[in-house]
Amino acid sequence: MELQIAVAKIEKYATSQSGDTVEVVERPNGGISVVMADGQSSGRGAKWISTLVVRKVIALLADGVRDGAAARAASDSLFTERKGKVSATLNIFSVDQQSGTVVITRNNPAAVLISLDEKIQILDDPCLSVGIYRGTRPLITEVPIEKGLTTVMFTDGLIHAGSRYGETMDIITCFQASLESENPSPQLIADDLLAYALRLDQGRPSDDITVAVLRVMNLSGDNVRRMFVRLPLEP
Amino acid sequence: MELQIAVAKIEKYATSQSGDTVEVVERPNGGISVVMADGQSSGRGAKWISTLVVRKVIALLADGVRDGAAARAASDSLFTERKGKVSATLNIFSVDQQSGTVVITRNNPAAVLISLDEKIQILDDPCLSVGIYRGTRPLITEVPIEKGLTTVMFTDGLIHAGSRYGETMDIITCFQASLESENPSPQLIADDLLAYALRLDQGRPSDDITVAVLRVMNLSGDNVRRMFVRLPLEP
Repeated sequence: MELQIAVAKIEKYATSQSGDTVEVVERPNGGISVVMADGQSSGRGAKWISTLVVRKVIALLADGVRDGAAARAASDSLFTERKGKVSATLNIFSVDQQSGTVVITRNNPAAVLISLDEKIQILDDPCLSVGIYRGTRPLITEVPIEKGLTTVMFTDGLIHAGSRYGETMDIITCFQASLESENPSPQLIADDLLAYALRLDQGRPSDDITVAVLRVMNLSGDNVRRMFVRLPLEP
Repeated sequence: MELQIAVAKIEKYATSQSGDTVEVVERPNGGISVVMADGQSSGRGAKWISTLVVRKVIALLADGVRDGAAARAASDSLFTERKGKVSATLNIFSVDQQSGTVVITRNNPAAVLISLDEKIQILDDPCLSVGIYRGTRPLITEVPIEKGLTTVMFTDGLIHAGSRYGETMDIITCFQASLESENPSPQLIADDLLAYALRLDQGRPSDDITVAVLRVMNLSGDNVRRMFVRLPLEP
């Protein structure tokens, strides 16, 4: 088997910086984590907040701290730093090779989607963003690593795409359609969701949007680890 | 224009963990950095060292510290932690959108390659690995961000590929050949170099090998930032 993770990300129209932050980090006992945060409001202030949260989490994960404890620490840290006045959403996907599971951590009202064999499960139990209250805890879901498992997380820019024009983003239908293509890559799934949102927003996203997709697939070819980053540069 | 970064990475044959570490991190003032370290020896001990070095560097870069200062700090930190008894090589590629340059940091006897318009420049001035002496300084080269600029860094596993079988890895010729394909992606360049090394090592790499390639290209399509990670899982 192999694991693939893809992230697609765009900033709110006419802002120079996205308030969303995503980082990928190796886990000290094997596996990998993707950490995504969306800082309250937009622009530089939001970026500062989401960066603080993500950095706190990845530093702890890199030390071998469990995901839930890392999320609680990030919340308390932001609460202490900003006296409960600013919030951020936080999600973590971790592939834990010790436990043989994907660990899904949510401090984000937005749902996380899980699919296996084209059946989609929606994780949308109520949970709080980090930073507002002392002692905020994440919701944690653990699922075995198995072929075909796909998990999707996103920031709320995806949910609200099109709302300025009276349109509604149907994330589940779009995800289902991507899953029906032949052995879809996570990059295809993430790109499809983001492209759909951008169409609804008429090419001018009304909020920062980030989509991250993790997928367990058949091993295709070699044993090489690969990483790829694409960054459009301003002219 | 857009920037693409690709990493290809494999561990020494019959070891469970590579001693090389690579992480990509956003820079707080715009742009991105790729940090690569190769810890002395192989397996878990080497991984511990390279992780320490990379984490130190990315934490400082994320705080806005300049690359040279971050590399010096990582060296002093490893020197202090391990009393000068262990070393690691360290390379950084940073795309600094404030200065409009790619900043290349070397604490690695292995060369860094730069290409523009298919002309290849070899950065191989002598420099020291980090961790052995107090006050080790990196070599820094700064080049303007321009279309077609390609930079390549690698760990010494690439250089020594095939040596067990009396073969010699001709990195420059392989890189030149990749550049001659039509608008090669950095992933193609990294994969070509690693595939060549694996052939020379008869599919059983005698050391951890990491190749990272950065390339400035024409903007192709949308303004979406993308990230992709592929991780083969043990059966």
